[in-house]
This record gives sequence, C-alpha cells and structure tokens, in this order.
Amino acid sequence: MSSNDKVETLRWVGNADGHLVLIDQTLLPVEFREIDCHSIEQVWEAIKQLRVRGAPAIGIAAAYGVCIGIRDAADEAALLAQLSRSTAYLATSRPTAVNLFWALDRMKAKAESLAGQPISVVQATLLDEAKSIHEEDRAMCHAIGKHGATLLRDGQGVLTHCNAGGLATAEYGTALSVFFTAQDEGKHLRVFVGETRPLLQGARLTAWELCRRNIDATLICDSMAAQVMREGKIQAVITGADRIAANGDSANKIGTYSIAVLARAHNIPFYIAAPSSTFDLAIADGSAIPIEERSSEEITHGFGRQTAPADVKVYNPAFDVTPAEYIRAIITEQGLIQPVSVANIRQVLGHAT
Amino acid sequence: MSSNDKVETLRWVGNADGHLVLIDQTLLPVEFREIDCHSIEQVWEAIKQLRVRGAPAIGIAAAYGVCIGIRDAADEAALLAQLSRSTAYLATSRPTAVNLFWALDRMKAKAESLAGQPISVVQATLLDEAKSIHEEDRAMCHAIGKHGATLLRDGQGVLTHCNAGGLATAEYGTALSVFFTAQDEGKHLRVFVGETRPLLQGARLTAWELCRRNIDATLICDSMAAQVMREGKIQAVITGADRIAANGDSANKIGTYSIAVLARAHNIPFYIAAPSSTFDLAIADGSAIPIEERSSEEITHGFGRQTAPADVKVYNPAFDVTPAEYIRAIITEQGLIQPVSVANIRQVLGHAT
Repeated sequence: MSSNDKVETLRWVGNADGHLVLIDQTLLPVEFREIDCHSIEQVWEAIKQLRVRGAPAIGIAAAYGVCIGIRDAADEAALLAQLSRSTAYLATSRPTAVNLFWALDRMKAKAESLAGQPISVVQATLLDEAKSIHEEDRAMCHAIGKHGATLLRDGQGVLTHCNAGGLATAEYGTALSVFFTAQDEGKHLRVFVGETRPLLQGARLTAWELCRRNIDATLICDSMAAQVMREGKIQAVITGADRIAANGDSANKIGTYSIAVLARAHNIPFYIAAPSSTFDLAIADGSAIPIEERSSEEITHGFGRQTAPADVKVYNPAFDVTPAEYIRAIITEQGLIQPVSVANIRQVLGHAT
Repeated sequence: MSSNDKVETLRWVGNADGHLVLIDQTLLPVEFREIDCHSIEQVWEAIKQLRVRGAPAIGIAAAYGVCIGIRDAADEAALLAQLSRSTAYLATSRPTAVNLFWALDRMKAKAESLAGQPISVVQATLLDEAKSIHEEDRAMCHAIGKHGATLLRDGQGVLTHCNAGGLATAEYGTALSVFFTAQDEGKHLRVFVGETRPLLQGARLTAWELCRRNIDATLICDSMAAQVMREGKIQAVITGADRIAANGDSANKIGTYSIAVLARAHNIPFYIAAPSSTFDLAIADGSAIPIEERSSEEITHGFGRQTAPADVKVYNPAFDVTPAEYIRAIITEQGLIQPVSVANIRQVLGHAT
C-alpha cells in the first residue's frame, strides 16, 4: 500500500458468503496490518479488543458480523435462530457503544421485513443493508468534509485533538474529513495534532492518518497548543464531538475545552465537526452531560511503566464540555450551524418549529 | 524513612574527609534510593546522568564534589593541582547548567583567598564554603515559601506544573516551598499537579515530593487543567521560572503559558515563584528569551515505546514565555513583586534607580 492510499477502516470482500477485512488499530502506528474476519467470533473479538473502535465503525463492523453469522443457514428457521444468536452475541462485545445496538436493531428489523423470502434473498438483502449502513456513514463523512472545507483557506495552519478521523468511521471521519476534503480541493494545510493524553489517540491514530494521506502534519504535546497559537501558526481549530446539547454545548475528549478557551484568547475560530446523530436535543445544555471518569492507571502507567508515585490521587475525566459560546460553528452533514444557537441547530437539523 | 520526612536532595556526611549522599532521581517515583559519592567521578556521573538535576542542586553537588577532589592532597602544591583538575573535570558534567560554573568559580575563588594556609585549614574552609552555598539555597527557598504562603488561605485548591520543588534545590524548592510553608503554617491545601509532558517531571517528581510530605496531591494530565479550573477546584496557580526578563515576562517549562491564559479566563490568580538569581535584567522583555527545541523522540517515544508514526513531524519547544500581564505577582526571597512591573521588579531586587 502506498502512503497516500485511502484508509479503509473496514471493508467487505465477496458476496453474501464473503468476509470482513479491517485494520487492526491496536498495532498502529507501529504496524499497519489488516485482519480477515471469517467468523462471527473474530468480529466479536476485534470489537472487544479495540482492533476496530469509534462508534460508527463499530456499528458497521457489527452489521457485517451479522451477515457472517447467518451465512451458513440451511433453512429459514435456522437463519432466524442464527440471526437471533448473532445479534445477541455481538451486543456483548462493547456494551456501551450506542451505534452497536442501533446497527444490530436495524439488521434485525430488515430481516423481519423479509419473512417468507428465500434464504439467499434474505442473506443478500442483509448484506446490502450492512453496506447501506457503511455507505451512509461514508456519505455523512464526505458531506461534513465538504461543508467544513468552505471554512478553510489554502496555506492555513489548523489544530485538531484526539481522533475524529477515518479510523473511527467508514472513511474520512468528521474533523479530519474537513482536512482531507480541503486537500482534495487543492488547499495545502499545515495540521497540528495534539497527542491527546492519556491514551494518545492524536499521536497514535490521527498523526498516522494524516501522514498516510501526505498531509503536512506536526505532532505536539497538548500543553504546547497555546504556544503554537501564540506563534501565529494556527488559523482554525476543528475537533469532533461525542454529544451535543440542544444549545450547542459540546462534549468531546478531555482537553477540547482547554483548546477552545485558548483559541478564543488568541482570536482563532474554534469549530466542531459532527454528524447530526451526535446531537441530543433532549438535553438543554452541557450541564446535563455526565463526565465519565476513567481509571488512574491511564495516567500513572501510561507508557507501560510506572511514571507516578503509587499513592498519588488521580483525576481522570475522559471528556469535557465546551460551552456553545466558544464554538464559532458546528459542521454537520446537513450544513454549517453558524452562529451556534438553539434556533439555528433546530433549523439546520430539520427540527424547526 | 517515614512518608513525611524531609526530602534531602543531597547532604554531606562527616568532616572534610567525608562524602556526599544524594537521592538518585532517575529511580523516582518507583524507588527511593540514596547513593553515596566517595569519589569525584561518582559526583560527575551523578550530575551527568541526571541523578541530581535542577540548576541550584547541581551547583551544590559540584561544590561538594570539589571538596572530595582535594581531600587526599599531601601538600599545598598537590591541593592546588587537584583543585584545578577537579573544577575543570566537574565543569564537563553538564555544560549548560549556569549554577554549576558559578559554584565552581566560587570554590576556586575561596581557595585562592586561602593561599599559604595549612592544607587542613583550606580543606575545612572549602567544605564550609560548599555548606554555605547549600545553606544559602536552603534559606532562599524558605524565604520564598514564607512570602508566598501569605497569598494562600486554608482549604484552597492550587495548581502547579513541572517540578519547582526540593529535588531541584537544597530543600523545599520554589513553587513547592510555598505549599510546604503554607502546610507548616497549618493551612490545608489541595494541590493539583500537571504531569508535564513530555518528560513528566510533574508526575515523577512533584507528585512524589507532595505525597512524601503528606500534602493532598492530585495528578492530572496537562490538558485537564482547564476542566479542573472550570469545576471551581483551583483558587491559585504557582509555578517556577527559568529566566525572568526586566519587565517580568517569565520563561518556564512548556505548558506554563497555557495555564496562565486558562487561569485568567477563569479569574484565578497566576503566580511565579523564583529566586532573584532567576532575573535577567539585561533582557528587556520575553521576546529576547530563546526557546530551546528538544528532540522529537521525547514525544514520539515517550517511555521506551513508539507511540507516533515514524514519519510525523514534531514540534517540541522545551519552554514558553508567559507575558508579565498574566502574572499576578512574582514571589522572590526578597519579597513579593506585585503588581509585576519594571519599577517594582527593580525595587524589590534592590536595583531601584
């Protein structure tokens, strides 16, 4: 594979009797290796062990996993039994990923709509459904990239955080899709990547994706963002989001709020790139978004060896919430939400009252 | 040693024929081990290998190293030869540490002032000189602590960065001296420590010092400072400094400027604690302070393993400069400089015109 090949997080090979191929992300950035999943157990293990991660990518992998699970059915009764077993089994791989359940439910609903059809038709149609889930995600990423690229100009320096890239989605990602699309449009960008302690998704995954696509990428420690801004190297910041409230307050990887505050202090626009499915309009503002705390070992034993005293207390929030007032625009597949307000969010998402 | 024992970065054992004992800081925080230096080669190796680090501590170690170097002289000629050899040799241990040369010059000057005196008198007087260097540093740290503690109240949460602690000095340190002194005065503080990527001096050294003195310490990643401030947990920030310009602009470990900007955005006072020797009044402002760039491996191969793609560019400035306008006060052994201005700096440092 050449360095500017597309990153295909996962892909299906063959027809209904085919198999799933995915990048083993646990080996990145040191080794690029694709693994073949011929059994549902292999798909389960890949999700469980984070070989494939990122909510959209997990949903797609699970949908293909269902196709593998029903591949050998001899009759309709067997197929329904295998479908039930497969979806229940895959649902145990990562109990917290919402897209996993959404994808499995969608596959089940499709199968139920095909009652009485020949097995081969059911198998082929379910594979089509998995491919639709895959393709819809790909289209969403590209639409975000297209809307977001209008915000960037040739020669600009941009900063991102964590991994909102192709590795978390079907292709292109969300924040990174904006950079990839801008590049496709002939704009040269200088992308700065915060390493994203504690788990280093920026260093391990985002830097790898950018290098692979020959984008001018520079890795920094998270604490260097302010200095890089002060040196005039950053003209825009774009990150992803995990959950966005009705007023635009956005939860994302810890450190995002810090960057948003620093960006404002340096008069640099801060953008969020996220699909409409990230919005939780039932939540009025960010104060209702719970902040998950993760284990202290992520900080004290970060690199496989102990780097802090055993008896020190640790605070390890996995996310923070950036208030809407710090966000210049939210880039969705439906268009730009700018300025960020309750009314504009509802209008762009098609919920205008 | 109990957990609330003092941290003695280094100490001299015995009379002029004694030896130097120092904490091997390369083993912290996993192991606390003191090493005995009976030869000048051992002192040289300890400085070279960063077993002792921090400009003041290096100077003190070198001064004691000279005492070891002249210990076996049989007559005055031999002593002068050993003195010359010892100072030249120790000067090669870490060529960039200013305090090293300052301490060696001071030892040489003292020896020259003793020409014609009996050898035993010279040896004893040079040991006294080394102890004076040691004691003056200790007194400086305590004075900083005393002045700084007036800024803190019982029950407050404070944030620090990197290691401005006893391990870099004779005892107590600069920023940490403020916390230790406040605790000695009966004030309970909750100290948050940024791990300080890339070299993790906060996690490895500061967290260790705080735990050892039973101070309520919580380790965070550098990117979490903004979130902790937003949660209302921080009432003051205190860091050290490596060089301070005539107008108060302060160079310190990378990430300090970021914290200063975040502190202002959250209406939290940001203080620098540093001895008067840190001021470089020949430099008008921070723009004249060069920013050292260090090797990319510190970020891409943090602790023995590769965590970023081999072909990614890296920007690794070791320091940043915090403009004086972000600094509420500078805490020196001569008193508080508040507000930070050219005139106030000159006045407190005794350079008033």
